[in-house]
Amino acid sequence: MTDPRKFMESLHFDRRLYRYDIRGSIAHARMLAKQRIIPEKDADLIVTGLTSIREELEKGTFPFRPELEDIHMNIEARLYEKIGAAAGKLHTARSRNDQVALDMRLFLREATGDTIRAMRAVQKSLVDLAEKNKGVLMPGYTHLQRAQPVLLAHHLLAYFEMFQRDRGRFADGLKRSEVLPLGSGALAGVPYPVDREFVARELGFREISRNSLDAVSDRDFVLEYMAAAAVAMVHLSRLAEETVLWSSAEFGFVEVGEDYATGSSIMPQKRNPDAAELVRGKAGRVFGHLAGFLATMKGLPLSYNRDMQEDKEALFDAVDTLGSCLETMAGMLRGLRIKKERMEQALREGHILATDLADYLAKKGMPFREAHGTVRDLVAYATENKKSLGGLSLQEYRTFSPLFEKDVLATTPESSIQARRVPGGTAPETVEAALEGAKKALETED
Amino acid sequence: MTDPRKFMESLHFDRRLYRYDIRGSIAHARMLAKQRIIPEKDADLIVTGLTSIREELEKGTFPFRPELEDIHMNIEARLYEKIGAAAGKLHTARSRNDQVALDMRLFLREATGDTIRAMRAVQKSLVDLAEKNKGVLMPGYTHLQRAQPVLLAHHLLAYFEMFQRDRGRFADGLKRSEVLPLGSGALAGVPYPVDREFVARELGFREISRNSLDAVSDRDFVLEYMAAAAVAMVHLSRLAEETVLWSSAEFGFVEVGEDYATGSSIMPQKRNPDAAELVRGKAGRVFGHLAGFLATMKGLPLSYNRDMQEDKEALFDAVDTLGSCLETMAGMLRGLRIKKERMEQALREGHILATDLADYLAKKGMPFREAHGTVRDLVAYATENKKSLGGLSLQEYRTFSPLFEKDVLATTPESSIQARRVPGGTAPETVEAALEGAKKALETED
Amino acid sequence: MTDPRKFMESLHFDRRLYRYDIRGSIAHARMLAKQRIIPEKDADLIVTGLTSIREELEKGTFPFRPELEDIHMNIEARLYEKIGAAAGKLHTARSRNDQVALDMRLFLREATGDTIRAMRAVQKSLVDLAEKNKGVLMPGYTHLQRAQPVLLAHHLLAYFEMFQRDRGRFADGLKRSEVLPLGSGALAGVPYPVDREFVARELGFREISRNSLDAVSDRDFVLEYMAAAAVAMVHLSRLAEETVLWSSAEFGFVEVGEDYATGSSIMPQKRNPDAAELVRGKAGRVFGHLAGFLATMKGLPLSYNRDMQEDKEALFDAVDTLGSCLETMAGMLRGLRIKKERMEQALREGHILATDLADYLAKKGMPFREAHGTVRDLVAYATENKKSLGGLSLQEYRTFSPLFEKDVLATTPESSIQARRVPGGTAPETVEAALEGAKKALETED
Amino acid sequence: MTDPRKFMESLHFDRRLYRYDIRGSIAHARMLAKQRIIPEKDADLIVTGLTSIREELEKGTFPFRPELEDIHMNIEARLYEKIGAAAGKLHTARSRNDQVALDMRLFLREATGDTIRAMRAVQKSLVDLAEKNKGVLMPGYTHLQRAQPVLLAHHLLAYFEMFQRDRGRFADGLKRSEVLPLGSGALAGVPYPVDREFVARELGFREISRNSLDAVSDRDFVLEYMAAAAVAMVHLSRLAEETVLWSSAEFGFVEVGEDYATGSSIMPQKRNPDAAELVRGKAGRVFGHLAGFLATMKGLPLSYNRDMQEDKEALFDAVDTLGSCLETMAGMLRGLRIKKERMEQALREGHILATDLADYLAKKGMPFREAHGTVRDLVAYATENKKSLGGLSLQEYRTFSPLFEKDVLATTPESSIQARRVPGGTAPETVEAALEGAKKALETED
Repeated sequence: MTDPRKFMESLHFDRRLYRYDIRGSIAHARMLAKQRIIPEKDADLIVTGLTSIREELEKGTFPFRPELEDIHMNIEARLYEKIGAAAGKLHTARSRNDQVALDMRLFLREATGDTIRAMRAVQKSLVDLAEKNKGVLMPGYTHLQRAQPVLLAHHLLAYFEMFQRDRGRFADGLKRSEVLPLGSGALAGVPYPVDREFVARELGFREISRNSLDAVSDRDFVLEYMAAAAVAMVHLSRLAEETVLWSSAEFGFVEVGEDYATGSSIMPQKRNPDAAELVRGKAGRVFGHLAGFLATMKGLPLSYNRDMQEDKEALFDAVDTLGSCLETMAGMLRGLRIKKERMEQALREGHILATDLADYLAKKGMPFREAHGTVRDLVAYATENKKSLGGLSLQEYRTFSPLFEKDVLATTPESSIQARRVPGGTAPETVEAALEGAKKALETED
Repeated sequence: MTDPRKFMESLHFDRRLYRYDIRGSIAHARMLAKQRIIPEKDADLIVTGLTSIREELEKGTFPFRPELEDIHMNIEARLYEKIGAAAGKLHTARSRNDQVALDMRLFLREATGDTIRAMRAVQKSLVDLAEKNKGVLMPGYTHLQRAQPVLLAHHLLAYFEMFQRDRGRFADGLKRSEVLPLGSGALAGVPYPVDREFVARELGFREISRNSLDAVSDRDFVLEYMAAAAVAMVHLSRLAEETVLWSSAEFGFVEVGEDYATGSSIMPQKRNPDAAELVRGKAGRVFGHLAGFLATMKGLPLSYNRDMQEDKEALFDAVDTLGSCLETMAGMLRGLRIKKERMEQALREGHILATDLADYLAKKGMPFREAHGTVRDLVAYATENKKSLGGLSLQEYRTFSPLFEKDVLATTPESSIQARRVPGGTAPETVEAALEGAKKALETED
Repeated sequence: MTDPRKFMESLHFDRRLYRYDIRGSIAHARMLAKQRIIPEKDADLIVTGLTSIREELEKGTFPFRPELEDIHMNIEARLYEKIGAAAGKLHTARSRNDQVALDMRLFLREATGDTIRAMRAVQKSLVDLAEKNKGVLMPGYTHLQRAQPVLLAHHLLAYFEMFQRDRGRFADGLKRSEVLPLGSGALAGVPYPVDREFVARELGFREISRNSLDAVSDRDFVLEYMAAAAVAMVHLSRLAEETVLWSSAEFGFVEVGEDYATGSSIMPQKRNPDAAELVRGKAGRVFGHLAGFLATMKGLPLSYNRDMQEDKEALFDAVDTLGSCLETMAGMLRGLRIKKERMEQALREGHILATDLADYLAKKGMPFREAHGTVRDLVAYATENKKSLGGLSLQEYRTFSPLFEKDVLATTPESSIQARRVPGGTAPETVEAALEGAKKALETED
Repeated sequence: MTDPRKFMESLHFDRRLYRYDIRGSIAHARMLAKQRIIPEKDADLIVTGLTSIREELEKGTFPFRPELEDIHMNIEARLYEKIGAAAGKLHTARSRNDQVALDMRLFLREATGDTIRAMRAVQKSLVDLAEKNKGVLMPGYTHLQRAQPVLLAHHLLAYFEMFQRDRGRFADGLKRSEVLPLGSGALAGVPYPVDREFVARELGFREISRNSLDAVSDRDFVLEYMAAAAVAMVHLSRLAEETVLWSSAEFGFVEVGEDYATGSSIMPQKRNPDAAELVRGKAGRVFGHLAGFLATMKGLPLSYNRDMQEDKEALFDAVDTLGSCLETMAGMLRGLRIKKERMEQALREGHILATDLADYLAKKGMPFREAHGTVRDLVAYATENKKSLGGLSLQEYRTFSPLFEKDVLATTPESSIQARRVPGGTAPETVEAALEGAKKALETED
């Protein structure tokens, strides 16, 4: 039988909020004194008491009492033990509802900062890897079919862009979450002359909430973080998928460092890219938190309902999962061995230059759609004769169109890449510029 | 920085599998000896060693070594310490892949048993509550509008039926999960003359898996449990929602026991149905595990991939969440105070007998659709004149249709209920029969 | 048997993109001519042809050919019919991949505009309803228990704030989606001297994409819209839930207009708030699109994969569902009848002033926690003696604390509300200010 | 502005239920006459009228009236037009709530039958493909690393097993859905002496529902189908993923038939496995329907609520999506070209026999764990010396362990496969037996 108190208890996870709780309480106490709602000396006692409680918590000597259900009551009860009746005044002009809403926002601000930092580390790893392998060519894929030659650096920078958008999303969400709920009381606002702007400033918040009912009912900031995290996990899962693919014997493009691989209990020859697989798998976990908490919040009447307590474990795990995946990816990329020769060999096989030939014809005046058809015939011919396009003679080319001239033989992976000098394209000089841009973005942005 | 080994480590959650791991290993060792794959005395040593390891684990004296990453390696290493080289023979004809698949299935069998038991306890609470309140009438609702009178017992038994279906779903899933994967090796089967049927019998499994690649790649049983759990949480969330609604001042139909409610930190008069709200909220959590693990499994090539390690925490939490919600609900229902007078008062207000009047006319020969229209006019008249339908005179009735005769005045909530003697209907005798059926179902079924 | 071509065909849903496709093609053709990649006269032909095709599509006379699979091929083929070989030049320096990415972004920009407009209409309805019922008091709830008196206007403005955040989220997403992918070609950039900035300006985009592989692989903008829509649906579902609750006989706070309600096929007295129920139910639908498309995108290697075609139906339905829910809610709120007397009656029952009495004592110097306990005793006493707090005599009050003085008798719902003059609180003057702020936000913001 | 009636209208999707609606109504009318609740001749009129309406619907001549909102009202109104007042009697002892619940169950029964049939077709394709390629060897993978040799047929039969479980799940769900709700009325049962068992028999249902409130509130059968469909889509997505992987130039194991591939608008050489990609992508879509409808059903009070109307579009699309994916997969497998030589070449590269060598040592008495270590050293040696394990001399082998004898040189992919004769293993004879078993399962099971 589950003890109902145990069912409702949240201490085992919300203790993680202690630092935010104490920080918020100190700001609240100072404001109460400043506004003469409580005596200055009581506020001093409270601040001193809370500071010493924080030390206990940090040292691990805090005497937790599970029967008090949550971290807030634990801290409050401990404060009574330390400073006596003055402790009771801390709860003046405040309710558990606005207090919890504040703690979660303070937590999220810090968590978002950590997320963005970890994301930059992945971006840094991508840039470094691109830098180190500037000259490496590889097949670009669509539908997992070799499509056109690209620079490995260009491929890596595609992920840089994804994380750049992610950072924007987290920053935008943060902006919306740096709003002080304190002063909302249980739901209707507090009947004391509090100075909410003062508390907001103390805590570094951008503004104060504009509606007390909303302030205690709102968990948008949790959902918004989760949604941004889910999109970021999509990106990580794609990068992880490619790491797994590229580590296969069939691709053989990369080798992950030993720390990020495992052997097999039964197959002595295996080097499994476990870390990448886990990152890919954990995307589902973060999606699940989002799907779950959306369902939890759906259809709740105003204002606070206990269902909302489910925000904590889900958010904490989303933050931790994303964080550890980012850090793992950053580390794995740093140790990734690029097998340049396998990448380039893949370029020599097959007909990866077909588009370039079509473009060749188009530039000589053939409508692109027609050029496309001509090259398809050419590919069919080469396949049938077991040649690669690069191995055909000018004469053979000209069987398919008189527009082909000698310069067609200069069509190579290198020429293909060189030709794509359009901004955002894969030519060495544009990729170089993109790399410079990326490095700048890493330096200058938040 | 996340240490990659820490990122991949699973010991902190898979230690929960130790009993299943040891049980499976003992059965495996015995089979290896029986088949003369390893010497009898080695098997004896292994069994003795594992038994003593189990004791250590149960007593909490097992020396966990996180650097060994998972529970399987921890047990294996400990076995070496205890019995020396013979320990190495346990891994003959077995791989981590089929071993983990076995442990999860053994865990799930036990968990499913627990789930079904807890579900029966909820059903028992429902039956008891219905029994104790057999004569209580209340409004039945559609669209949260009062619709027709029903017996409270009938309402409660609706939930009994939902959980009855749930039990069927869990039992069906169990049937599909009691399949022995051992013998599948890493993926291709083992090159030893093992007796898989023997191991299956030892472990109480129904059959052996028919394809080794499938056996190590399959996590259907995890998904199927999660899906059944998600549906069960839908049912619990509906019951919880009604508990919350009925606890409101506006409904006032029930009062939850003190153990299942909390007061407010700021509002001294509150008695909040927190446990019910949490049950409702936790439905989202279980949905999330399902949505998440579906995404994790999607598109994985055969056979085992490390992504699948994500099955554990999600399944464990789904099992625990459903279990604690069921137990909480069973307990809450036991202590629920039914406020009979409020329920019955709700019946007297409004026009809940309108359908009965339409049926009255239909029985006298008026096509139902027409009868429906006539009663709508009657309701409009009553509303306008601020009367309830029960308060109209025969003369007034007859203004709307000459089919109304004196017996129309005998239309009451009680007569309405009595009339619904159809099997499955709300008449006292059919509900009585349903109650008997329910009690029988509780006694005789697994 | 499903014909595989039919399985892959997307024309029946992507035809919705025709306007964006044509707009993009026109800009592309103009740029090609400007850059002398194709002759001016070909571009003119193309533009004229496309313009006439758009007319056909708008008039419904366009001859769709399902065998051409998608809208892009349909338009292209039609262009050939109209202008001949010059049509083939339109595909110069462009691929289906960057073309589709562009069309979706153009669609989304317009859809986001529509969403924000519809959201403003809901906000306007809320403000109007609040304005019209400025003086109405009602119980504020936590845990669906009456907690403290609030102004109805304050309650309504809580939703205003939610939608205000939603608008911010959509606007932020839009910012990230107004990025031109054209020029990325199939994946590697195009080998022509295109002027991407020119096309971006023509189409009103903020910037050009910085990486071609990313540009054709990226569907973040779809996910970001869906996530914002999911959060908005949470808000709508909460408002819908309250509409359903408040329409019940038990609450009786509102009556929805006839257009937004239905009768019953069998119960003539019913007025069911169907529109609100549907809005609530459709939240799940939008959550589902998000959960589904996250799973679809997970783990896809770069660059384009056909899985991504699943973006369209899901996004279209998310846009349509959110749009129709917003419009329905806006209309329903306009026709909502507030039953002021029921709301205020609910305030008189029970002990909703308990917090105010605790605050009373706290202001007289009793620590809040102690005051809270004293009032709890007071509530117990009142309940036992079947009195409401408002009905106790001063003498009775003073039995519980000598701090109670004559002025305690002036504690009323009105005084409670007046006292919460804190910014964001429910006092008439702060709500008035909030209303003014809301009106201003409606006028001035995008 | 969305017209609220249009928002609530369901005709455009529920018209799909017409056959079930009419079938149910005919059974209901017959029962009403049998029980003398309505006159025989009215029942005859109703049956004749409904039959002729069905014809109109099948021929496409039925005059739909969207203003009547749903298919049920459309049919009912048409019946009035055809047979006059007697039409009104059809609604006796029935409500829209139990009628819709019936229609959905009838639909689902047929849909489930179709699903299972389509699934068998995929299984048949797998068996045929396995049969045709009985002797083909390929690398089995874990972590997408080559692990051990397996038969292609064995690999294919792994999927056979998955679909076999799926069929079991659908059959179990069907069992729970073949329950007659009719007779439940709006929520409380009907006040007429109906014969529910008769109607159940007429419609081929297994039993009648036992609780009227549950019967009209229950959508478990929708969720259960969706959950089974989601798991089936996991399986399809894995098979699709492998099709995509194997179609890549890097694997080169298969070539999909032209009907299931597309070319590229820009790259003439491409043969993209689009159908497989779409199947993979559509898994997300089905997951989304499940996640969405779980959220919709969560927390709904009893009994019917309009939210539940969201069951239809989601279920219809889940049925259609799964059905078309199954059919597409069945067709694609039929046309799949196996490139045997590439599969076998992949076996010759690398160290895929390492496990076999460890087993070799274990069989000679070395504890498996030690054998594993020895072979790891051997692999390291071979890698360093750029040899494959098969290319080492006996002398080299013996450097690592004296247990190696001449027979070690007979370790080949073929011997590896032969050795795994355990039931469920990959040896030719066990796979042959599995094939026979599969063919039998296809013939004899529902």
